[in-house]
Amino acid sequence: MSRKPAQLIGENRLIQLIQDRYQDRNPLIKKGIGDDAAVIRPRHAREYWLITTDMLLENIDFRREWITPNRLGYKSLSVNLSDLAAMGARPRFFTVSLALPPGISERWILDFYDGLTELGNLKGALLIGGDFSRSESGISISIMALGESLNRKVLYRSGGKAGNLLYVTGFLGQSAAGLKLLEKGSRNPQSRPQQAAIRVHQKPEPRCEAGLWLAQSGLVSCMMDLSDGLSVDLPRMCAASDVGAEIYAANLPVFPESSFWGCDPVNLALHGGEDFELLFAAPNSKAGMLEKAYPKQFPQITHIGELTRDVGVVSIIRPGRKRSRLLEQGYDHFRRKKPVGNGD
Amino acid sequence: MSRKPAQLIGENRLIQLIQDRYQDRNPLIKKGIGDDAAVIRPRHAREYWLITTDMLLENIDFRREWITPNRLGYKSLSVNLSDLAAMGARPRFFTVSLALPPGISERWILDFYDGLTELGNLKGALLIGGDFSRSESGISISIMALGESLNRKVLYRSGGKAGNLLYVTGFLGQSAAGLKLLEKGSRNPQSRPQQAAIRVHQKPEPRCEAGLWLAQSGLVSCMMDLSDGLSVDLPRMCAASDVGAEIYAANLPVFPESSFWGCDPVNLALHGGEDFELLFAAPNSKAGMLEKAYPKQFPQITHIGELTRDVGVVSIIRPGRKRSRLLEQGYDHFRRKKPVGNGD
Repeated sequence: MSRKPAQLIGENRLIQLIQDRYQDRNPLIKKGIGDDAAVIRPRHAREYWLITTDMLLENIDFRREWITPNRLGYKSLSVNLSDLAAMGARPRFFTVSLALPPGISERWILDFYDGLTELGNLKGALLIGGDFSRSESGISISIMALGESLNRKVLYRSGGKAGNLLYVTGFLGQSAAGLKLLEKGSRNPQSRPQQAAIRVHQKPEPRCEAGLWLAQSGLVSCMMDLSDGLSVDLPRMCAASDVGAEIYAANLPVFPESSFWGCDPVNLALHGGEDFELLFAAPNSKAGMLEKAYPKQFPQITHIGELTRDVGVVSIIRPGRKRSRLLEQGYDHFRRKKPVGNGD
Repeated sequence: MSRKPAQLIGENRLIQLIQDRYQDRNPLIKKGIGDDAAVIRPRHAREYWLITTDMLLENIDFRREWITPNRLGYKSLSVNLSDLAAMGARPRFFTVSLALPPGISERWILDFYDGLTELGNLKGALLIGGDFSRSESGISISIMALGESLNRKVLYRSGGKAGNLLYVTGFLGQSAAGLKLLEKGSRNPQSRPQQAAIRVHQKPEPRCEAGLWLAQSGLVSCMMDLSDGLSVDLPRMCAASDVGAEIYAANLPVFPESSFWGCDPVNLALHGGEDFELLFAAPNSKAGMLEKAYPKQFPQITHIGELTRDVGVVSIIRPGRKRSRLLEQGYDHFRRKKPVGNGD
């Protein structure tokens, strides 16, 4: 077990409490509470099976006026498949529980399922069940996804060592830049970067192929997905791996166009959330090979920093300035004061 | 595939739509949408794995003032394990997604998990993960449970044949009688039957051992659990098995004490819902052996009727009267007009 960092608050603290009190030791469980997905090994099965679940709530995680049911379905599954990607698992099955307020049409529901199954078909995940409820307030979506390992190679948050180099896939802060546009009432912008940002926010692509490749490569020590923002998720990786981290602001693969609509791209890359990119670390000795072997057709990977011996301390080095502590300002369900869309 | 009955409405119609449009055929899926749980067979695994999910929403499925967090946790897992019991699977793992409004204390959350894990420990199901969200309205609970078959013997809703005898475990209408008391403001009654009814409503016992025994026995043709009431659930079994059914009102294992507080015990047994007992059928030729071999220490089983050739028609034979159609008056999430607790 990793040491319990003193600054655990909100969601982190809750998860830690549950983990400490209720975590079971059992030979069928390779990994229980506390990673992106649970890992079990059914008796006599060749592979591990990975299980993850995520809930999306109206007016907390999305606004009905801002997203089509099709894209909402796509996104709801994407956030779950991203958790499987984060451990290198292949998506296999999913279930969907929907609580619906009065007035939601059959058309809306079918469009939602069209979006779900569009991504499911793309990534090889089959819809196997679910549940319908009536809701007195907004829409609640709860999805569970099951994945399968390949050759039992999965990556945990906990394998990182001091000195490992830190990488991310893709760009950071683009989804948050899209959310800013939606908050400003800009639903159908003309500019390409604005369209791209909104698209990434509404239809994030889970990094399944990259995650699988990274887990199979044998070159990576730990991995997770970025759902709540680098400044919230990186400390979770550090806590699990019992290390610290420093990141180089100048290296961050930001989405610079967001400055056109008044955003600070670095700020969004650090704290924006909902990137659904992969964060992973590799031993220094293997980093060169990793960068060379990583397939060109996958989303780019960027070296953004390294893991350090300074347990629990996450620092950022900004151009021309000294190192400073990186404060957690990403998304924590119990700290965030305002729901999505009341953001000004 | 069974024929699509004409009277499908509400929740049934939605499930049928989703099943028709999105059901995948895949050798790893033994049973997808439309039964109590999905059944998959991981490659090289000896056993089938069963997956079910259920959502419980505040003010729809429960009221916070009427149930302790401990019992709410117990019940939330119980409704899921009941789905596994309904197919004869052994509970193995579960995940919990919780959306919590402001003001829920850490104590409340831990009591809820105590209730969950109390039942999990009793039935051999291990907590392996979950998700926390903030809610702007009430508490949402979404649980996913995984079970394992024994010798790949599972029972579906669809195996029933005309002429099979129909059975239920335990008593019907007791939970609904408990709910009636809570609706009347009677939280801590002195009378034993009232206490028992409230206890059954708040802490239903999933019939895991009986379900496993029945599936192993080889004497049963189809099975499901009673969650929405016999008058809603029996037509689902008939639709899946392509048969009709008739039940004998005089045989129903009702909870007669509920008449003391103004309930009609037969009415509650037919339409009350949340019984979480097992409904199953057995060929006439095996019924005698079944009744003889069924373990005495398990909840009693009662012969309540039989399956008929009259596809889609469910009738009830009341004492001294002729056969009449049994109307669906149980719980359907999209037909029910009032939420739990506005029941007068």
